[in-house]
Amino acid sequence: MTSVDRSCLPHVTTGPLPASTKVFTPGTLYPDLRVPMRAVSLHVDADEPPVTLYDPSGPYTDPAQSISIARGLPRLRDAWVRARNDVVAYDGRAVTAADNGFAAGDRLTPAFPTPVAPLKASGRRAVTQLAYARAGIITAEMEYVAIRENLGRQMQREGGGEGAARNSTGRDGESFGAAIPDLVTPEFVCAEIAAGRAIIPANINHAELEPMIIGRNFLVKINANIGNSAVTSSMEEEVDKMVWAIRWGADTVMDLSTGRNIHNIRDWILRNAPVPIGTVPLYQALEKVNGVAEDLTWEVYRDTLIEQAEQGVDYVTIHAGVRRAYIPLTANRVTGIVSRGGSIMAKWCLHHRRENFLYTHFAEICEIARAYDMSFSLGDGLRPGSIADANDAAQFAELETLGDLTRIAWDRDCQVMIEGPGHVPMHKIKANMDKQLAVCGEAPFYTLGPLTTDIAPGYDHITSGIGAAMIGWFGTAMLCYVTPKEHLGLPDRKDVKTGVITYKIAAHAADLAKGHPAARLRDDALSRARFAFRWEDQFNLSLDPDTARAFHDETLPKDVHKSTPFCSMCGPKFCSMRISHDIRAEALSVGSAVPAAGGGEEGRGEGA
Amino acid sequence: MTSVDRSCLPHVTTGPLPASTKVFTPGTLYPDLRVPMRAVSLHVDADEPPVTLYDPSGPYTDPAQSISIARGLPRLRDAWVRARNDVVAYDGRAVTAADNGFAAGDRLTPAFPTPVAPLKASGRRAVTQLAYARAGIITAEMEYVAIRENLGRQMQREGGGEGAARNSTGRDGESFGAAIPDLVTPEFVCAEIAAGRAIIPANINHAELEPMIIGRNFLVKINANIGNSAVTSSMEEEVDKMVWAIRWGADTVMDLSTGRNIHNIRDWILRNAPVPIGTVPLYQALEKVNGVAEDLTWEVYRDTLIEQAEQGVDYVTIHAGVRRAYIPLTANRVTGIVSRGGSIMAKWCLHHRRENFLYTHFAEICEIARAYDMSFSLGDGLRPGSIADANDAAQFAELETLGDLTRIAWDRDCQVMIEGPGHVPMHKIKANMDKQLAVCGEAPFYTLGPLTTDIAPGYDHITSGIGAAMIGWFGTAMLCYVTPKEHLGLPDRKDVKTGVITYKIAAHAADLAKGHPAARLRDDALSRARFAFRWEDQFNLSLDPDTARAFHDETLPKDVHKSTPFCSMCGPKFCSMRISHDIRAEALSVGSAVPAAGGGEEGRGEGA
Repeated sequence: MTSVDRSCLPHVTTGPLPASTKVFTPGTLYPDLRVPMRAVSLHVDADEPPVTLYDPSGPYTDPAQSISIARGLPRLRDAWVRARNDVVAYDGRAVTAADNGFAAGDRLTPAFPTPVAPLKASGRRAVTQLAYARAGIITAEMEYVAIRENLGRQMQREGGGEGAARNSTGRDGESFGAAIPDLVTPEFVCAEIAAGRAIIPANINHAELEPMIIGRNFLVKINANIGNSAVTSSMEEEVDKMVWAIRWGADTVMDLSTGRNIHNIRDWILRNAPVPIGTVPLYQALEKVNGVAEDLTWEVYRDTLIEQAEQGVDYVTIHAGVRRAYIPLTANRVTGIVSRGGSIMAKWCLHHRRENFLYTHFAEICEIARAYDMSFSLGDGLRPGSIADANDAAQFAELETLGDLTRIAWDRDCQVMIEGPGHVPMHKIKANMDKQLAVCGEAPFYTLGPLTTDIAPGYDHITSGIGAAMIGWFGTAMLCYVTPKEHLGLPDRKDVKTGVITYKIAAHAADLAKGHPAARLRDDALSRARFAFRWEDQFNLSLDPDTARAFHDETLPKDVHKSTPFCSMCGPKFCSMRISHDIRAEALSVGSAVPAAGGGEEGRGEGA
Repeated sequence: MTSVDRSCLPHVTTGPLPASTKVFTPGTLYPDLRVPMRAVSLHVDADEPPVTLYDPSGPYTDPAQSISIARGLPRLRDAWVRARNDVVAYDGRAVTAADNGFAAGDRLTPAFPTPVAPLKASGRRAVTQLAYARAGIITAEMEYVAIRENLGRQMQREGGGEGAARNSTGRDGESFGAAIPDLVTPEFVCAEIAAGRAIIPANINHAELEPMIIGRNFLVKINANIGNSAVTSSMEEEVDKMVWAIRWGADTVMDLSTGRNIHNIRDWILRNAPVPIGTVPLYQALEKVNGVAEDLTWEVYRDTLIEQAEQGVDYVTIHAGVRRAYIPLTANRVTGIVSRGGSIMAKWCLHHRRENFLYTHFAEICEIARAYDMSFSLGDGLRPGSIADANDAAQFAELETLGDLTRIAWDRDCQVMIEGPGHVPMHKIKANMDKQLAVCGEAPFYTLGPLTTDIAPGYDHITSGIGAAMIGWFGTAMLCYVTPKEHLGLPDRKDVKTGVITYKIAAHAADLAKGHPAARLRDDALSRARFAFRWEDQFNLSLDPDTARAFHDETLPKDVHKSTPFCSMCGPKFCSMRISHDIRAEALSVGSAVPAAGGGEEGRGEGA
């Protein structure tokens, strides 16, 4: 084992967000569960209870935890998995030089210091959440996500202080066929997973995981991509980006590393990740054959899948839908094939004049995945890379094949979600969702944006945030973020945060529009704080308290301005909201003296 | 006249954008017109003509012009107005101390150095574009905007080089009843204005104006707000922000100044503005009565309207829809009345127990406006300030009154647009557009966002960009930008640019989705550049070339990387687009050997 120089260990950001306390809810079926949420306390004048928020940030925001990247997070989930008595520990596959892209010496990222023996299913059993759900077994993971999703709904039902109760409104939204229950029960989670409408990406070897669920009858989730490339970045940066991304709300993280050291970097990430980690195994397989797509083989790919399954990767993108027959459909596109995985497989198919080996071997891939509960994210290798190519024959042909593959995976008890585009103008977005629902049996949709125009490189978090909010509303279960650096370079820490916050906005806007029963609680609490000039509460309830506070302080930095009834936009004389308080008082006092709306007796003046 | 210290004159940004040339198109009816557009030249390898873009930036981006803020822009339009022989020059109203909020001495912003005598209609004539249109007169302004709107459509019809022609696709979109013609003619402009479906905000005293049109059968426009407040900023900053906003694409600018020096700051802005300038006269009227809403009178307001009409303000927000009877409808809102104008008038109504004087005197307001062609932006003083208050009784009662006022204005030949919200969740956005079309006779809609969630102060350009793109698609003619500082402070230069670029994205995404016949030309040209690794072309065609280039250069700064077939995201080995080029060559060469889509003879492999 390579020794670890602790002075080089990554710096990661820890500590709670402002005014926030980590609170834990125990399970009923599994009393040992400690499901984390973030409670934001408000000013005493608010006369409101703390606002409870979904919290994917893990132990890093818990002051009670001591964090050591070299030790990794506590492996609490290991006991849940072993308690099911359907797995065996075994000596995993030996790490090879190829696993790290033949990096050596100083260029080799050290291995994670404390390796553990992997688990796999005993015999040919399926140890997937789907298999359990179909058998009617409610797992610890299912109860965990039920509690987690339920956030605030119980509180809303019971009222939550005078202010909160006053504006509680019940359901309001257009869900396009989604069926979000008033209260999420473990039984509901189990039924949704059994139906294939939701997944809990949770490899049995990712014992550090705090489970989460992806499905259109749950909160809309977001994914953040990290990963080094042959050109730039390091393990330290990637672990830091992962912790940073979940601090701001990323629900899952994909490690899309493509250079050397892929194996070791992934190990560091997984051992420190409380969220599901996704990968594209094809990237690593290609490194193992020195980047020559034609040299890829099923055997190299299969070996890579097992390698990643043993490490604990929770979901894998499989580009099995890029069928040989579809490749000519891309020849006249404006931007051809823009998916890396898609282009690699297309190149392989053309060279060998054979069908995509991921397609022909898909059932074998399922056999591996079911032994570890590694979920599938069926890749859209033919997604459009420009407005011009949106919703074309190549894209939709592949989508239909992803539907076929979904049924193959379901036959083998594997959990599945479906990847979607890409670049799509607004008027073509809904067709994507509708077709996905129709041909993929309601398996969760997981889209990249989509970008609604091509003309704003440098701002593609925004071009895509528009499309993401809309497709999230229409039913997409998870939105893959796009950062300002899209098309231009790898995101740094700042870009990761901007991408995450933008996508939290899109996901939340979608939850509101779908009529999620708890979504508006946060908006209403923040709006009440805004109207009451509780500036600190307004900052603390926002997606990014630091930025909100910094912007306010640019013009009114003094503490006294955190409670003054105006801001620098209008100054003290013109504040509409302060005037509005006066109006409220007056309107209520004059009451019946003011004619009712529509019944005004005063006509327009003589001039009118 | 106060002397101007030229050393203190504002610094404004001049010079062309990268690879851009200002080109001018003459009129046919008015051969002297020089309608500006921006031509972006591409790399010689592209084999494509320059891409022609709409250009509201004025002479500032024209190297042939010498700019002097103290001199102002050339007053080319003065001759067009005088040529109609229906105006008279007169000694304008004398500037009073109250006009500048009683600022004196060092605190008084100097007056603009070269005042001009104002024009007004001779006799009781209407000198509005609406009056001319109804009389079947095609004005210079109408031909100007027809040429301007037509951008690229002629080129598209005639093909534009091999690359452009290859991907020319004709109409594709969902316009929700908008009727955008294949080619905009002066006659079409005239008919749209006559019908009230479009306006050209063009005060006869704003001779520096390059006319533009606002209507749902034209390109979606954006407005940028600037303006000082009692707390912060100066004339220098505001002129600089105006020039900066139009450089990045703002189609109109509203001066929302609320502190002292309002008159003089506005003069500096107008004399240097090639875009329509909008204001809220109520803000200045309130300054004249020392900020005490109850002390407002029709006489003070009327005086302010004339003052601004003489200066050349192109459109004014009038909060005449805040009827006394509607005020109690806001009493139980979460955020009351958030419009400054709305809250001021509500306060006045409650105090005096009388109907809003802007409503009772609206016909007299029209008489003033028609003598200068000052357009109305009928203000939504009761717009929702939170998701909780969206689409409520107060908001929609006011909207119906705005419909009544529209007809009063049209009866007097005044041009009208209607302001809209605000804060609206996605599922309630379309109802706003539908109701506005129904009750306001298709007068152009002009919305602020809307913000689709309340939880992201610091990012409200994004929360609102989502709503803006959607409502623009549904038919809103102009989108009022929101900057990252919304709710927190006044925007600085950086915020102005971020707000403008975000709203250019929203407006363009809307044009694409509506099926505007020329909108996709820019997307396609940029996508072809992207696919061909013409990095410089990709930057130059983007909304913000500087940022796109800077992001790319962060990881690959060398010039040679501007033509290398990869970027730092994937590095050289994995570039999907480069692989895609190989695929295109191979796919085309194997041709018939590859089975057609859907007719693949290869079954799934044995494992499938």
